[in-house]
Amino acid sequence: MPLGMADVATVLFSKFLRFSVNHPSWFDRDRLVLSNGHGSMLMYSIMHLVGYIGIDDIKRFRQLHSITPGHPEYGCTTGVEVTTGPLGQGLGCAVGLAIAERMFSQRFGDDLINHHTYAIVGDGCLMEGISHEAASLAGHLGLDHLIVLFDDNGISIDGSTSLATSDDVRARFSAYGWDVLEVDGHDFGEIERAIGVARESRGKPSIICCRTVIGKFMPPKAGTAAAHSWPFSPEDAQEFRNAIGWEGERFEIPEEARTLWREVRARAELECDLWMKKFAGCERAEALNEILSDGVPNGVIDELDALKNTLCETRPTEATRKSFGRVLEFLATRVYKLVGGSSDLTSSNNTKAPHMEVVSSKSFDASYVHYGVREHAMAACMNGMALHGGIIPYGGTFLVFSDYCRPAIRLSALMGLQVIYVMTHDSIGVGEDGPTHQPVEHLASLRAIPNLYVFRPADAIEVLECWEMALKLTKSPSLFALSRQSVGFNRVCYSRDNLAVKGAYIVREHEGDFRVTIFSTGSEVDVALGARDILQDQGVGTRVVSMPCWRIFDEQNADYIANLLGNGSLKVAVEAACSLGWHKYIGERGIFIGLDRFGASGKCEDLYRHFGITKENVAGTILARLRSGM
Amino acid sequence: MPLGMADVATVLFSKFLRFSVNHPSWFDRDRLVLSNGHGSMLMYSIMHLVGYIGIDDIKRFRQLHSITPGHPEYGCTTGVEVTTGPLGQGLGCAVGLAIAERMFSQRFGDDLINHHTYAIVGDGCLMEGISHEAASLAGHLGLDHLIVLFDDNGISIDGSTSLATSDDVRARFSAYGWDVLEVDGHDFGEIERAIGVARESRGKPSIICCRTVIGKFMPPKAGTAAAHSWPFSPEDAQEFRNAIGWEGERFEIPEEARTLWREVRARAELECDLWMKKFAGCERAEALNEILSDGVPNGVIDELDALKNTLCETRPTEATRKSFGRVLEFLATRVYKLVGGSSDLTSSNNTKAPHMEVVSSKSFDASYVHYGVREHAMAACMNGMALHGGIIPYGGTFLVFSDYCRPAIRLSALMGLQVIYVMTHDSIGVGEDGPTHQPVEHLASLRAIPNLYVFRPADAIEVLECWEMALKLTKSPSLFALSRQSVGFNRVCYSRDNLAVKGAYIVREHEGDFRVTIFSTGSEVDVALGARDILQDQGVGTRVVSMPCWRIFDEQNADYIANLLGNGSLKVAVEAACSLGWHKYIGERGIFIGLDRFGASGKCEDLYRHFGITKENVAGTILARLRSGM
Repeated sequence: MPLGMADVATVLFSKFLRFSVNHPSWFDRDRLVLSNGHGSMLMYSIMHLVGYIGIDDIKRFRQLHSITPGHPEYGCTTGVEVTTGPLGQGLGCAVGLAIAERMFSQRFGDDLINHHTYAIVGDGCLMEGISHEAASLAGHLGLDHLIVLFDDNGISIDGSTSLATSDDVRARFSAYGWDVLEVDGHDFGEIERAIGVARESRGKPSIICCRTVIGKFMPPKAGTAAAHSWPFSPEDAQEFRNAIGWEGERFEIPEEARTLWREVRARAELECDLWMKKFAGCERAEALNEILSDGVPNGVIDELDALKNTLCETRPTEATRKSFGRVLEFLATRVYKLVGGSSDLTSSNNTKAPHMEVVSSKSFDASYVHYGVREHAMAACMNGMALHGGIIPYGGTFLVFSDYCRPAIRLSALMGLQVIYVMTHDSIGVGEDGPTHQPVEHLASLRAIPNLYVFRPADAIEVLECWEMALKLTKSPSLFALSRQSVGFNRVCYSRDNLAVKGAYIVREHEGDFRVTIFSTGSEVDVALGARDILQDQGVGTRVVSMPCWRIFDEQNADYIANLLGNGSLKVAVEAACSLGWHKYIGERGIFIGLDRFGASGKCEDLYRHFGITKENVAGTILARLRSGM
Repeated sequence: MPLGMADVATVLFSKFLRFSVNHPSWFDRDRLVLSNGHGSMLMYSIMHLVGYIGIDDIKRFRQLHSITPGHPEYGCTTGVEVTTGPLGQGLGCAVGLAIAERMFSQRFGDDLINHHTYAIVGDGCLMEGISHEAASLAGHLGLDHLIVLFDDNGISIDGSTSLATSDDVRARFSAYGWDVLEVDGHDFGEIERAIGVARESRGKPSIICCRTVIGKFMPPKAGTAAAHSWPFSPEDAQEFRNAIGWEGERFEIPEEARTLWREVRARAELECDLWMKKFAGCERAEALNEILSDGVPNGVIDELDALKNTLCETRPTEATRKSFGRVLEFLATRVYKLVGGSSDLTSSNNTKAPHMEVVSSKSFDASYVHYGVREHAMAACMNGMALHGGIIPYGGTFLVFSDYCRPAIRLSALMGLQVIYVMTHDSIGVGEDGPTHQPVEHLASLRAIPNLYVFRPADAIEVLECWEMALKLTKSPSLFALSRQSVGFNRVCYSRDNLAVKGAYIVREHEGDFRVTIFSTGSEVDVALGARDILQDQGVGTRVVSMPCWRIFDEQNADYIANLLGNGSLKVAVEAACSLGWHKYIGERGIFIGLDRFGASGKCEDLYRHFGITKENVAGTILARLRSGM
């Protein structure tokens, strides 16, 4: 791909791309996403030629601690906008970047914000399901500042793409409402004209199908699957040098080329400088700078505390998804960088505050996106929005469908993006919709993702406290697991301190001898508290620990952890989910009450009883163990 | 949907569908998949009318232990072919069913096997990414026995579908190479003609876009999102009765309707009886019956043992993905129901045995599918193939991309299907491709799925033994996590017993005092054994337990488990993955050596060293702990 798409990328950089090596985070730069990230050397080569990286970095390609890893990594290499590699993700991300651009352009004026998002995609990206979701959404929203460059080389790893696909890509994208262009990907003039036309498109995203030869100039591998991922031997390299008539040394770059690329960069820096001047004299600069700064406006956290105080008086018993919507309603009028959405479950997820306007092709001066039944694209778009800057995206679906967005959730975590996932209907509490809609393994499988903070709050107050933490986690994604069904209100009295801030805390201390610790999360904290009442009635001193966020608890100091683990007591965990991971807290001999099997269709209460997740069963099981003396 | 699609379903059942209540598993029946499974009552109503289920079952709709759960569940209700609900999955499954049908038809003759696969899909199914992958594959393979009935009602949960999509569905499916038809979904004549035309299609799958009114006859909710998922009040019910002029009791069915549906069933049973007679007299019956029986042919396991014996002599040290391919090559010529494939990673996954022919639109007399870069559709298709019967499907991708197929893997487990997932490149051992391609959390997240057997074999022999177990697990999916890099050969000598059959076993016993147990899996068993050598040299008696399958180990009896857990010894786990779940075996105070963070791009050996997963670090950490006396 670095050979096959070199001509296209050269035209893009030299004739169009707004970028600045001096100011790599220039807000109005174009965003370039290499969705088929395995072609990273294409990026690195050009980034070297324009001055982002040195030749030594090129030499250290794919070595540990280098800034030229196998796939482009955001945060690792200045100028790399998006971590890519898992196919199709870059395209989804690009759609989010393009939505964000339109939002800012409409809010701050297109004299200040008017840049393009370019995505280079391969056959693989377009075979992936996410390409459908993303392209369909982009067409629906008429994202005319999105330009996709399709490396149409007809080759995939297994061989010719004709082995596996017969799609008419042009007709397909037309059906999504895109402008479709086609060029010889090795004809500079054609490429330049096509990008020019795409940039003038109004009301439609564009895809430019670039007919290219994979491994160009690399006979005999050119145009075959052998050029895709087979090692490149010294003989191949010599053939390549012969083919292009190059007699210089390895890593040597002809002065003529250097000069041309220097001019490319100079042109780009000039454009950036002009913008910077315009920006410096602009009255909207302050507002834009404010929205681009990390964190939330001063005073919001204080005001949130006032809401907490009120809640402690009204003591609402409600579904945690409802509490989530309640806090959102409060925040959405104060934190303008929140941009919400749902995968067609808006009223179930409670993701839309009343005043929020909906983004459409007619207006981007809005903060809510109807993503449609496209969980995967939603998550990838949110990554794009977060990368663009100035937006804290959040989006909802049912927890069980977190599986659909998992590859993009992983990238939120890998890139360290502040994206908030709102996953409601978080257990068998879903009830009648049955096992296909009841998450069981999802909490564990999400807790396993490095740098993802999974919050499962137990009541209205914990929801608020977790919201506060999510707003502060500017380098990590958060995921809320929220109940469909009502839960109790557990907090005994108002405290200014965010009790959930350590990930786990004692929600009810034992009375009398310390015999039992029950760990629980979310809707099952009610069950744990109920069991505690029964046990205390029988004189069994029982502490209940609520654990809204395991990861944060694991980050606490050893004393805090040791204290909460309550060694010496019988340790019990109650969670309407699988047991995986709980033994870290309850030990090998602890008791787990939950379900290591799929759920069932039935009333919520019937299901909790059927699976034994009741206060009576928890208390009974504990008493039996205590009596057995084991 | 049960109201909006009633007319279409009525025509389908009464005029076309091959089914038999007397012989519900009749092999040549048509397969009907309700991909938008939330409309389950449409199925249940008709299934009642033709005699599959009683009126009491209808009354117990969505109640615990009923056979009419909220979404259709395979195995719960006779006549339900596929568990559906997660949108788009049914369509993917239908493509697998249709591939299987073509395979059997070509192998056994279309006089014996010639049935259709019908899928009812909604707007949501078609917005999901998997619809792209599945439809594109179906078009490529020219599956002319696949007929999709699209409930084109223009409504989703959030409101009009125009809120979120502007796709030209007709043009989109044409671009995939489908025949596209359009009907008034309430005009019996039009529907019948369209299905008739679709059944005559040659070389192309068909989609019939049925323009319908959601909640038909239910003013004023008809045609609005209120009809989608809002509760149906008693007043609504009365309005509905008024609208259709029905004055009978609840659950009462007019005799006229009963009679007509009795005739529908009689026609269907007759068709089945005729087939049964033809089949009984057919010389191919025996071969077909054999392939449809559970399990593998007699003698295969014995022969596999001979291969094991040979391996114990040659003692190959190779990547476990290579060992997998080795055993596959052996099995593929003996177990004809194995149908393989890969998502464009055939030569990396080692999923294609040399003699295997490739399925194409020209020939289905083959056993290998190039699924393209479509992991999700691959997994869903495999579910369809397994449901069809007579096929044990297996398919490969990289372990990190198991995330892309997760919703379908979950359904394999929920339905209890024998599907074999071949996931290679199973750790940071991936090396230079970097963190986007290195699984970290995937083993844990997959182990969390109920009824999924995750195998991570450590050497050529364990690969063979796990293959044997996967062949015997006829009611569960298996997933192989296999190394990219070479591993050692650990088995000391040949044993007829399958040592891996208990999920975990002692691969090297301690010598002298029993001080330490190291648990490990896959490529890290080498590290554990290396650490043991160092420790034994220092007189520290160290046992190494290989745990190729946690789930199977958890199913063993208490004595076996207790013995292997080696209480009293210092417990250590070594796995190049996240720690989640390990504390169940090593206890709260056990040592885990692995990585609770993302990987990096670099040489495999450099990465293992960087993350401290080396025999030196394992041994050193253990010695330090022993010295500290804690």
